[in-house]
Amino acid sequence: MNEIKNYIKSHEMSEMHPSEIATILRGMDDEKFSKAIKLVPKKLVGDVALALPDRYFDDVVENLSVDELSQAVSELESDDQVEFMQELEDVDENVASKVFETLDEDDKKEITQLQKYNENEAGAYMQLEVFTAHADEIVQDVIKRFARLRKENELENVQNLFIVDNHHKLLYSVGLDDLLIFDFSKTIEENIKESDESFEPIKAYDKEDIKVVVERFKQYDVSVMPVVNEHGILRGRITSDDIYDIINEHATEQMYNLAGVDDEAEDDEDVLKAGRKRAYWLGINLLTAIAASLVIGLFEDTINSMVALAVLMPIVASMGGNAGTQTLTVVVRQLALGEISNGDAWRSIKKEVAISLMNGFLFAVVMGIIAYLWFKMPMLGVVIGLSMIINLLMAGFFGAMIPLALKWLKIDPAIGSTVILTTVTDVVGFFSFLWLAKIILL
Amino acid sequence: MNEIKNYIKSHEMSEMHPSEIATILRGMDDEKFSKAIKLVPKKLVGDVALALPDRYFDDVVENLSVDELSQAVSELESDDQVEFMQELEDVDENVASKVFETLDEDDKKEITQLQKYNENEAGAYMQLEVFTAHADEIVQDVIKRFARLRKENELENVQNLFIVDNHHKLLYSVGLDDLLIFDFSKTIEENIKESDESFEPIKAYDKEDIKVVVERFKQYDVSVMPVVNEHGILRGRITSDDIYDIINEHATEQMYNLAGVDDEAEDDEDVLKAGRKRAYWLGINLLTAIAASLVIGLFEDTINSMVALAVLMPIVASMGGNAGTQTLTVVVRQLALGEISNGDAWRSIKKEVAISLMNGFLFAVVMGIIAYLWFKMPMLGVVIGLSMIINLLMAGFFGAMIPLALKWLKIDPAIGSTVILTTVTDVVGFFSFLWLAKIILL
Repeated sequence: MNEIKNYIKSHEMSEMHPSEIATILRGMDDEKFSKAIKLVPKKLVGDVALALPDRYFDDVVENLSVDELSQAVSELESDDQVEFMQELEDVDENVASKVFETLDEDDKKEITQLQKYNENEAGAYMQLEVFTAHADEIVQDVIKRFARLRKENELENVQNLFIVDNHHKLLYSVGLDDLLIFDFSKTIEENIKESDESFEPIKAYDKEDIKVVVERFKQYDVSVMPVVNEHGILRGRITSDDIYDIINEHATEQMYNLAGVDDEAEDDEDVLKAGRKRAYWLGINLLTAIAASLVIGLFEDTINSMVALAVLMPIVASMGGNAGTQTLTVVVRQLALGEISNGDAWRSIKKEVAISLMNGFLFAVVMGIIAYLWFKMPMLGVVIGLSMIINLLMAGFFGAMIPLALKWLKIDPAIGSTVILTTVTDVVGFFSFLWLAKIILL
Repeated sequence: MNEIKNYIKSHEMSEMHPSEIATILRGMDDEKFSKAIKLVPKKLVGDVALALPDRYFDDVVENLSVDELSQAVSELESDDQVEFMQELEDVDENVASKVFETLDEDDKKEITQLQKYNENEAGAYMQLEVFTAHADEIVQDVIKRFARLRKENELENVQNLFIVDNHHKLLYSVGLDDLLIFDFSKTIEENIKESDESFEPIKAYDKEDIKVVVERFKQYDVSVMPVVNEHGILRGRITSDDIYDIINEHATEQMYNLAGVDDEAEDDEDVLKAGRKRAYWLGINLLTAIAASLVIGLFEDTINSMVALAVLMPIVASMGGNAGTQTLTVVVRQLALGEISNGDAWRSIKKEVAISLMNGFLFAVVMGIIAYLWFKMPMLGVVIGLSMIINLLMAGFFGAMIPLALKWLKIDPAIGSTVILTTVTDVVGFFSFLWLAKIILL
């Protein structure tokens, strides 16, 4: 009960950061949560809801009225408004449209505008609130206007002043650290001309792939980037906190794709939805496993005459699968991080083949000796050793080739590559081992 | 040759961003590269070298003299100086110590200071250049000092003014957007008292785990954070560009760990080094594969009397391995992103077991029918169906349990968890299938 008591003093909460409130709320059971969420100051509740994991959004919606939700939305910045409305729609379309109706016209227009972007477009991640000025304005006046906007809470976390022309076309980006040392009695244009800094903006286009924009943030080490449309008209800005989230989301997507998991379905509380998506990839894996079994089936007689082969054959396939996954993971990740450029593909394949041959020989010797000692048959050791070399070589080659080929075909190298690879390593593993056994041992 | 000609106009290069120069250099062969790198303006060559992938560092060192390298280092900010010296040491310790000797005393002191931090400590990622003031200074004077420091190129990319006491203890952090609307004729203290904003700094400790600091950046949506020591003395700052890199590095580390690959060894150009680290995990995988084979060996007689079992058994193991990897990946990633908190472990296990049971039943039916049609034995279908359910259930349960248990034991949940999991799914897969076949079919 102590926690709730603390919440009653809601003036204290208004001094807390939304994410701090969210952290405390997460530790509560349903009953406490529903009491506490109602006590969160209305100007913070939107940010708190977004700082909570998605699965709490239902509880937030349940415990707030349409008016309270609407107030929460209106306190948010434009990009967060869009996110809030999106989550609200996912939970209850009916409530979402009611909340939308109660918003003021500006908010409605902004939300509709931002919702038009695809989730892979930079525009989907921008906020529309920016601090702009014309080149012929006196610096002193611009700062006065800024002070007024700050007081009205219209602008938060400003790092740059964007200079636009009469058509709102972006001309320059002036960091506040530069603005601060400008001559306040002169115009911005005059200051820019007198400076030897470059005020050429490093910008993003609203329809540009967000992945490319993230690379640009990293390349130029910037913490904010203006977003313009195809005519150069300033539309909004993307800030570093969006970039942190996007980098994490892309990494998650990649890991999930490699494992045959859908990142959006997993975010959902609905177990059926996540399960269905996973079943899809398991289904494909079943087909490849059956393909491998068909290969084994070709050698039924061979196995019948020497059951030791059945005992040993999974080892070759398993080692190939693991070595291939090592290569695949490295190549997929290095492609994503831009560490393998177009000219580097060949270098990458050579490196991977070299490593896999090296480890192929190593484990051929190790496993050859083990098989010999286990079954007291020297030639069985030779057979498993040879097939180990063949399969690890294939694993290295295809582990590198598959993602490079997918990339070349403009397909995401992380999607499906694991399944293709294990098909290769299973089929090659079983076939090489059993076929060599048939011709050498029998 | 056109490219080189462009480079000759080196005054043009001095207007380019280091990462743009790096991009052009990457497209060149060795000969062109060595000519071009010498033409890069000396004040940029350090940044260019750091913007190139690690494997180019050798070429940079080869083509520059000790004096040139030393000049390159002295132009860098402190955190980049440390990185440059580190890479230089990796390439040639002898040259590195010569370069270090030629640096001025301040640079030497700073580099030595920063090198003392562990790579998991926040201090290792900070730069020492910060913009500070005392609370009793008049804002106007502070801005004048700032303008002077900017002109001397001592401060770049400043977003905050850090207010310290006489012992350099951090008191407040003032964003430049706040500073801009301060009354310039009053002291900072007076301005802070009159404002209703909070200037309490969101800070990091130099010995703190960098992962915790990254979470704090995300939690508070900040693009810069002051770093203090255990006495609250301001040491430096960490900026958003460091955070982009760290988020990516941690994601890479996690993906690599799941695949049995060492991220540091892979960064090295030395194929032997990467290969040895991979061989380590392949060796552990060999042990688990042999364990699975020993299980198969227990049922040699069973297989001898029905070779169809050898054909089908890899399917059960493969499906278990895949379903388990799906679960494992999701749980490892959600743990890393803080989406599974301490109280959530049970919820997570329940969810994963539910999904795996669901898919277990689905593929039991599918594979049961296939096995029946393939080998015309209804009971073989029942056997493979039952073992499919058992193995997918175990896959879901252990796929969730293993990372949660490792986390609870304060071990990185990504390291080694894949190998433990596949041991479980292989052993359970082979054992359940062959044992059920023995008691039901024979």
